[in-house]
Amino acid sequence: MENVAIIGASMTQFGQRDGWVRDLLAEAGTACLDDAGVSPDAVDHLYVSNMASGEFEGQTGVVNALVHDLAAMPAYTARIDQTSSSGGAGVKHAWQSVASGASDMTLLVGGEKMTHRTTAEATDVIASLTHPVEYKHGVTLPSFAGLTARLYLDTYDAPRESLGKVAVKNHRHGVDNPHAQFQKEVDLETVLESPIVADPLRLYDFCPITDGSAALMFCPESVAREYTDDYVVIPGIGGATDTHVVHERADPTTMRGVVESSRIAYDMADMGPEDVDVAELHDMFTILEFLQSEDLGFFEKGKGWKAVEEGRTERGGDLPINTSGGLKSKGHPLGASGVAQVYEIYQQLMGDAGKRQVDADTGLACNVGGFGNCVITTLMEAN
Amino acid sequence: MENVAIIGASMTQFGQRDGWVRDLLAEAGTACLDDAGVSPDAVDHLYVSNMASGEFEGQTGVVNALVHDLAAMPAYTARIDQTSSSGGAGVKHAWQSVASGASDMTLLVGGEKMTHRTTAEATDVIASLTHPVEYKHGVTLPSFAGLTARLYLDTYDAPRESLGKVAVKNHRHGVDNPHAQFQKEVDLETVLESPIVADPLRLYDFCPITDGSAALMFCPESVAREYTDDYVVIPGIGGATDTHVVHERADPTTMRGVVESSRIAYDMADMGPEDVDVAELHDMFTILEFLQSEDLGFFEKGKGWKAVEEGRTERGGDLPINTSGGLKSKGHPLGASGVAQVYEIYQQLMGDAGKRQVDADTGLACNVGGFGNCVITTLMEAN
Repeated sequence: MENVAIIGASMTQFGQRDGWVRDLLAEAGTACLDDAGVSPDAVDHLYVSNMASGEFEGQTGVVNALVHDLAAMPAYTARIDQTSSSGGAGVKHAWQSVASGASDMTLLVGGEKMTHRTTAEATDVIASLTHPVEYKHGVTLPSFAGLTARLYLDTYDAPRESLGKVAVKNHRHGVDNPHAQFQKEVDLETVLESPIVADPLRLYDFCPITDGSAALMFCPESVAREYTDDYVVIPGIGGATDTHVVHERADPTTMRGVVESSRIAYDMADMGPEDVDVAELHDMFTILEFLQSEDLGFFEKGKGWKAVEEGRTERGGDLPINTSGGLKSKGHPLGASGVAQVYEIYQQLMGDAGKRQVDADTGLACNVGGFGNCVITTLMEAN
Repeated sequence: MENVAIIGASMTQFGQRDGWVRDLLAEAGTACLDDAGVSPDAVDHLYVSNMASGEFEGQTGVVNALVHDLAAMPAYTARIDQTSSSGGAGVKHAWQSVASGASDMTLLVGGEKMTHRTTAEATDVIASLTHPVEYKHGVTLPSFAGLTARLYLDTYDAPRESLGKVAVKNHRHGVDNPHAQFQKEVDLETVLESPIVADPLRLYDFCPITDGSAALMFCPESVAREYTDDYVVIPGIGGATDTHVVHERADPTTMRGVVESSRIAYDMADMGPEDVDVAELHDMFTILEFLQSEDLGFFEKGKGWKAVEEGRTERGGDLPINTSGGLKSKGHPLGASGVAQVYEIYQQLMGDAGKRQVDADTGLACNVGGFGNCVITTLMEAN
């Protein structure tokens, strides 16, 4: 089977945006067509990663809107929803449409419009993905994060400060990302003294509510060569799930979806964690960066926090994590986030990451849906 | 590339049901595992076709619920939404996951829970898929159908009665479908004298609001042979779109999505409309059965109504259409409908359709999203 290539990418400014999700999708989609040098009528499959345009905006059928706005009819289109990992799921479906031979050119656009709703409203829409039993008891995703952080710190004898250092690092990285919602450093004291949200986690342990969109262009490697000499391929991709009811997990400090999805991706690519030079992880909450960095095999279980303390995941470290600023500083427009992770790795592997550039031939993106309910791990290599 | 096979299928009772969509999905999913003789841990990909669980029920993440309820973790999962053609889109994504080599066993479950909302509320949720300009003017899908029916009758000199005969035929077929919402005949007079909804269409020209779920099990043909001697293969499948703004279409009596999606499916299968022995079409409104039967190439443009008048699409005719009773009498639980169409063709090709059985080696299902915004055409053959 031929490799699946990525030949173009785009992302909009993340943050508080005017317009509706259809406007953001059209902006990113148009920019991606331009970046790839592909005309709309060459696109035969168009996917939209989006969790909840109906709930947030009262607008469904956003794929119909986008195919129309890009003048890409009669391209096939569908919306891919896997809650907060909808973007990563979209990457998998785009890979499948090309790898199956159904598509010679698939455009994936992820996006979400959220900031017109209050934080309470947005949190409630997101919490509707949890199990009804847990939802009824008010256990939103931030409260799961607080419980898990407490368990992690106790189990692995990690200092509270180590969580804060994830936020400090990712904000520092975000300073050099012109698309990030926050382009400013924060110091450890600010993080540790910010208001408590879900003890022990505080305001700066959480990603913000964000509007934004990102897009990627996929095709078979043979088609990619018709467009460009430089592109990125996907040697492995995997998706996996964990229990819907979080309290049923034997060890909530291990995310089975991360373990299994990365195993599938590594096996497909005949690679291991030691081959990864740069990674984008789903730091919706600071604690999640520890869990993923361990469950992906980068660091020993219970030692992810030490890697952060030692600066190994900084831009200058041996395994830079979240060079984009991560969800923490770049922002987290649900359906866009997994697409924007792959956008960042694409920029790094193409050597187009500007001030954020690190030395990397192989990258990994890990997108987490719900509280680890569904996870997509994508491996990428420069051609 | 290997053929993609279907080795099991199920559908729940369609109609007014208790419980929530997650209950209906679990019911159909469990029945499909049983029908295929596949254990949950053999399923590696699980898709849910569903348009609007968030809008109808305030519950998102239904895929997380289903993978948990079926004990299919760590299977990858995602929700596929293409509004009213979400079921057909799910079939395409299931085909792609197997054809790409990513999956050896994909379970697709489509479902929607709607009857707990009023008809006005449900119609408004569905109308939110239309273009904002048309939505603001109150142009719901039934009103598009009325406008199109008027144009068709005028353009092709067809009698109003011919539309009524679609309803009469599909109700007659539905009598023998134990899963159908309505299992009773209606006579032409009843149809023609029912209340006007969108002139010239009347109440009996429309499908009902329905709860229900249906499921299918997909695998490579080599894996199918490990489970069974008798199965169905998908030699061709295609999806295509038309303008989001309906009033921009040059000829609203032609559905470009049907023309293009069937062209892709026929080409992939090296078949033509003359090879089809039985078909399930998307008769959400009676007029749509005429349009599809022409745009799929079964009958000449403007002559679909004559085929119905002549009884050619009856169960005993030369091309039986909607042997299941169609959306008209079986019901239309949005995300389930495209899956249930393929369920019916599967039953026919396996010789398991009971009183509805016709003589068929090759079948076709055509699932229409929105007002022809996106269409999926699936070809199927007995092995």
